[in-house]
Amino acid sequence: MSITAPAGFVAAGVAAGLKSTGAKDLALVVNQGPTYDSATVFTANRCKANPVLWSQEVVKDGVVRAVVLNSGGANCYTGAEGFQTTHAVAEKVAEQVGIGAIDVVVCSTGLIGLANSREDLLAGVEAAAAGLSADGGADAAAAIMTTDTVSKQVVVEGAGWKIGGMAKGAGMLAPQLATMLVVITTDAVVPAADLDTALRAATRVSFDRLDSDGCMSTNDTVTLMASGASQITPPLADFTQALTQVCTELAMQLLKDAEGADHEIAITVLNAASEDDAVEVGRSVARSNLFKAAVFGKDPNWGRVLASVGTTQAAFDPADLDVAMNGIWVCRASTPDQDPSLVDLSAREVTVTIDLKAGAERATVWTNDLTHAYVHENSAYSS
Amino acid sequence: MSITAPAGFVAAGVAAGLKSTGAKDLALVVNQGPTYDSATVFTANRCKANPVLWSQEVVKDGVVRAVVLNSGGANCYTGAEGFQTTHAVAEKVAEQVGIGAIDVVVCSTGLIGLANSREDLLAGVEAAAAGLSADGGADAAAAIMTTDTVSKQVVVEGAGWKIGGMAKGAGMLAPQLATMLVVITTDAVVPAADLDTALRAATRVSFDRLDSDGCMSTNDTVTLMASGASQITPPLADFTQALTQVCTELAMQLLKDAEGADHEIAITVLNAASEDDAVEVGRSVARSNLFKAAVFGKDPNWGRVLASVGTTQAAFDPADLDVAMNGIWVCRASTPDQDPSLVDLSAREVTVTIDLKAGAERATVWTNDLTHAYVHENSAYSS
Repeated sequence: MSITAPAGFVAAGVAAGLKSTGAKDLALVVNQGPTYDSATVFTANRCKANPVLWSQEVVKDGVVRAVVLNSGGANCYTGAEGFQTTHAVAEKVAEQVGIGAIDVVVCSTGLIGLANSREDLLAGVEAAAAGLSADGGADAAAAIMTTDTVSKQVVVEGAGWKIGGMAKGAGMLAPQLATMLVVITTDAVVPAADLDTALRAATRVSFDRLDSDGCMSTNDTVTLMASGASQITPPLADFTQALTQVCTELAMQLLKDAEGADHEIAITVLNAASEDDAVEVGRSVARSNLFKAAVFGKDPNWGRVLASVGTTQAAFDPADLDVAMNGIWVCRASTPDQDPSLVDLSAREVTVTIDLKAGAERATVWTNDLTHAYVHENSAYSS
Repeated sequence: MSITAPAGFVAAGVAAGLKSTGAKDLALVVNQGPTYDSATVFTANRCKANPVLWSQEVVKDGVVRAVVLNSGGANCYTGAEGFQTTHAVAEKVAEQVGIGAIDVVVCSTGLIGLANSREDLLAGVEAAAAGLSADGGADAAAAIMTTDTVSKQVVVEGAGWKIGGMAKGAGMLAPQLATMLVVITTDAVVPAADLDTALRAATRVSFDRLDSDGCMSTNDTVTLMASGASQITPPLADFTQALTQVCTELAMQLLKDAEGADHEIAITVLNAASEDDAVEVGRSVARSNLFKAAVFGKDPNWGRVLASVGTTQAAFDPADLDVAMNGIWVCRASTPDQDPSLVDLSAREVTVTIDLKAGAERATVWTNDLTHAYVHENSAYSS
């Protein structure tokens, strides 16, 4: 169900021939109203794919009536021809659904520098439009998968309203955002400005704190559409809380499906002078290949944690840092404390806790370990 | 010969029992004068090892008469006890050589959080002092190896003067500096202030642009000592040029011996608005695990190059970037150009050229690919 769980949405996922395997590769999600309010966040990468360049214009007025997504090619660095393909896809959706092209967000994912067949895409849009249904959520979620091993979906219920979401992404996960495409739907009545506030608050503590491999994508897009079909306007705080739950659950599904990972690592930074400091420290550890390789090797190498903390500008005393792994305080006051051999890293879930003793703020950043399988998948992806 | 090639220096390398293999693990280098001018640069990591904390005080007056280095343990995050060990080692060197402890730089390398046996270290210093000789350079270079597979040495000759150098490091290579210990000697007559200027100029374009795995060490130290024994004062420009050659050759030796690497990658950024921009762009590509894994897989994946460039703040037009790999311009004006299948990545040496078209500055950053062997070595190092 996922994105079609809230009232007012129909969706479809079809095989347009972009994937050589014949699997589903094109998804269409349409908001049937009565409201068309929306909010979207894009990759912070300055080198953006054509669909992002197009969609940035689409979302400016806060109205989005449909999202069309394809896997099998990112349509990034494909020049003017590639932009025209994106435009043609939006026009085709508009024609099929009976809306304006300027209300159609386009998302693509796959290899950079690869032009998709415009013919295949346009035919796929026709097939998807013909197949739109209130049961189409699962098909749409399947159609956006690339190296994902499972589709990612979630539904959260409010008091008479719902939020549904789907995501794709399995590596190249880094802020802001992870390499991922996300569509979120709700039947609550929420004006675009409030959707924007809520979406930024929710992504800030979920997708933006997912840092699987430090690599930022060119195509990331998170689009939230509100149909208003429930006729209920929830308190913004309630809506934001539910939306944050949706984003966090999707982020955790992405983390668990990261390419070749053996461990999910939650790095929590305590007692920071600011939340920004806590995030900076967490992210620096999440990006240490040495630390990530150690976790793969089930080695509680806290020296590599401190070496990463030391590269940041956060407020702390280098001689007074505490570090725990899976709750064992292996380092207190920057010296060895509990025996590292007490740390059992055989389970997939690993926690690292860093106490900066510099304030009262905290944050958690999530990452994966660095494995042989990661190297294998990413050395063979385009060949 | 290396560090004992210039007149006025004696050195030794001995087995002090710190390495379980019984290999040489303690080196001593002594400047016999008549001058004792010096310059040193340390890691920028805020979490510094005890030997760095000690040596930072030693170098303040520009006088260094001896450097003692041990492998087998980094003496980092070993608390007050660890600092006292460093101090005791400096005192022992001073006593044996007949100088003041405050003129003795101490360097350690190995696992973080591991205390070395003070007894073994002090006995090792006695043995090294007894074995000091003008032929001791090679033994000293061997004694500082950790996961290095070869010792790193270089000699450059000026007009009647020489510079010699030795280095250790094989991974955890990142600015500023790479994980490495470097001792450089010269018999030129150069005052400490000029040595400092020359050393900073030389390291800025050599060690500081080596970024093997993005991880910054806690122990990096580069110490340059001038004995004045040649009685020749070269023009500072000549000396700086020779010193830059020494640092660059040692940096390339470190790059070639990086843990588990299959390729040496030189990333050159052309036509940048500033040298800082060029370095920022080069470094962002050097830190992309996706790009590095692609090179390991012999896949000329230029999309991952542009995706990394896009994460920087450098001046450029995202729609007008050119990228070459091994001289093949696979991307022009941010669109596909020459056929990537023309790029042969079978040789160890790989060049990536990025034209920002934003100015007249340039820089080269060096890195390695991301391999199974890297993951293996770094997941098993401390266990």
